[in-house]
Amino acid sequence: MERFLLLPDSFKGTMDSRQVCSIMKRAILTHYPEAKVVSIPVADGGEGSVDAFLASQEGRKITTTVKGPFMEDMEASYALLSDGTAILETASCAGLPIAGDRKEPDKTTTYGLGQLMRHAVAQGCRKLVIGLGGSCTNDCGAGAAAGAGVIFKDSDNMPFVPTGGTLSKVVSIDMSGLDPAIKSVPIIAMCDVNNPLYGENGAAYVFSPQKGADPDMVESLDKELKAFAGIIMTELNEDIAHIPGAGAAGGLGAGMLAFFNAKLQRGIDTILDTIGFDTLAEQTDYIFTGEGKLDAQSLSGKVVVGIARRAKKHHVPVVAVVGDIGDGIDDIFNEGVTAIFSINRIAAPYSVLRTRSQSDMMLTMDSIIRLIKSRK
Amino acid sequence: MERFLLLPDSFKGTMDSRQVCSIMKRAILTHYPEAKVVSIPVADGGEGSVDAFLASQEGRKITTTVKGPFMEDMEASYALLSDGTAILETASCAGLPIAGDRKEPDKTTTYGLGQLMRHAVAQGCRKLVIGLGGSCTNDCGAGAAAGAGVIFKDSDNMPFVPTGGTLSKVVSIDMSGLDPAIKSVPIIAMCDVNNPLYGENGAAYVFSPQKGADPDMVESLDKELKAFAGIIMTELNEDIAHIPGAGAAGGLGAGMLAFFNAKLQRGIDTILDTIGFDTLAEQTDYIFTGEGKLDAQSLSGKVVVGIARRAKKHHVPVVAVVGDIGDGIDDIFNEGVTAIFSINRIAAPYSVLRTRSQSDMMLTMDSIIRLIKSRK
Repeated sequence: MERFLLLPDSFKGTMDSRQVCSIMKRAILTHYPEAKVVSIPVADGGEGSVDAFLASQEGRKITTTVKGPFMEDMEASYALLSDGTAILETASCAGLPIAGDRKEPDKTTTYGLGQLMRHAVAQGCRKLVIGLGGSCTNDCGAGAAAGAGVIFKDSDNMPFVPTGGTLSKVVSIDMSGLDPAIKSVPIIAMCDVNNPLYGENGAAYVFSPQKGADPDMVESLDKELKAFAGIIMTELNEDIAHIPGAGAAGGLGAGMLAFFNAKLQRGIDTILDTIGFDTLAEQTDYIFTGEGKLDAQSLSGKVVVGIARRAKKHHVPVVAVVGDIGDGIDDIFNEGVTAIFSINRIAAPYSVLRTRSQSDMMLTMDSIIRLIKSRK
Repeated sequence: MERFLLLPDSFKGTMDSRQVCSIMKRAILTHYPEAKVVSIPVADGGEGSVDAFLASQEGRKITTTVKGPFMEDMEASYALLSDGTAILETASCAGLPIAGDRKEPDKTTTYGLGQLMRHAVAQGCRKLVIGLGGSCTNDCGAGAAAGAGVIFKDSDNMPFVPTGGTLSKVVSIDMSGLDPAIKSVPIIAMCDVNNPLYGENGAAYVFSPQKGADPDMVESLDKELKAFAGIIMTELNEDIAHIPGAGAAGGLGAGMLAFFNAKLQRGIDTILDTIGFDTLAEQTDYIFTGEGKLDAQSLSGKVVVGIARRAKKHHVPVVAVVGDIGDGIDDIFNEGVTAIFSINRIAAPYSVLRTRSQSDMMLTMDSIIRLIKSRK
């Protein structure tokens, strides 16, 4: 009996990872009706992580009311897996789509994330896994800390919830209020960027424009982050500004380090740990993965390469089925990818191909499985 | 030791079949340095057939002076293989490129082809294989017959060489002058169309517009063909007008039947016979083929499907590496194709992809071979 493990990322703009899994599985079962197919849709820590985990892992979705990016009440969900791991998404309560047209990264907060963390540990979770991607904030995680019980005071000794535009007003940080249940569990923050907190490669300069900051605001947000790093240094004796990933999600990476002692870890590695990849890999003949575009950037640890690196140890072939195959990807084979195929099958621009990606994916998978089978 | 047989058609507009063979071979040897690779570039009976045969078969190219489409002297070449087979191309002396801007299918002749046939049998060839494709003529092969010794006379009992516009002027056909050496060898005409000689699916209506005929001329050429079929019936007692392929190459298909007792046969089957395909297939592990576009039309016996049908009997996997994969090709797998891959790897129009087809072909072949090898 053939065994296949499917671990595709989404094809952004055309197919989510569950659709990709479904097509891959259909192609396999057409030619190997008896095959064992394990489908694990992958979202690399950004939006969709909760649903992606729940699509393949035992667990349940928990919805609760927390504060949104402008401190409004809203409902947000997370996953509590049966092994005790809670999967949280920053995007669920501080995501760009929630902010809608009101893009004000100087005013938005991650407060709701801190509340979600409290809620999850109150449910008895034994580990927190937090996706940082897709935030509309630049608050260095101060909001999340406040939501979890940390108290920030200004020069009038008044407690407040700092946002991107008011970080420098913090005079003291009181960690004693932090929910002890949060302190008692390991926290993994899924983070796929290496940016420092501030400076030209920092959160404000690199990411805040897409959150609505104009050049003046970018400069101002950057100053706030830098000032806040100094305050954290003074108050908490933590030097987190230059740790790779500190600048993720508007500085939430740094906040995760400073306030929660979290471990920043690549999304795909976290996912592979959570699903028990090493055991699964031992029990499979082929791994199929894929993403919308494979290029030189993919070599820095996105889904396909992240999987290949781990699969290599188990000597399992990894077949990547992708949208476009960019240039400069020769090294990907050294990383453990066995073969790469593009689903493109006619010469046409993306505007045409995006409307037919599902049938093109099916045709490509079909021939790959036929080729594999011909070897028997 | 792995054994591969390469039989690609050209990718029209981007790569000739020899280039495709060369890229395929390079990809294979990268991963199987010890592999035995047999490369046979294929041209399906049209232009390039002579060179394609000589690229893979022992033999020599013979050049001689014959009449061109307007009875001008010109040099034309054919291949004489060491097994005694001569490969002739109609396009070598009556091809559209030779006519250049002077597209007058009512005036052009296949006379030179008849001369080439005489020349080849004078060299002692034991079999004539003639590619019909790419002609600028509509003379029903009367020119070729005249060039080989047949005498056509008009109502004044004057011998003349009929062309597309003067076929109906033939009153008598004297076959006694036909070179007896030509009569003594089997003649195969490579023909990939099923059109009858005249009528709405005939040579004039379907093919003469691309040879320069305007609507009036199309009608007139069709009448000439119909009249000539009647004359052939009267004079030679041959009813060839409705035989599939009679309308190939401006009616040359019909002329091959009527004047030369030739066998019309699909180009790819003729090529596979000539190269000894069945023996080669028994000695290979994989066959690779390909063409510029695979679509529903390909099912009617073009290169890929022609090869697959024959390979199926030998249970050898056939991998098709093509440019575009069109719709309606599901039946191709029943015909014996194992798997189909497009070389397209980015979403872009043909104008972009055509400039990078060689590297895209290399990348696609590379992953196919890697996948095959992973199974070992």
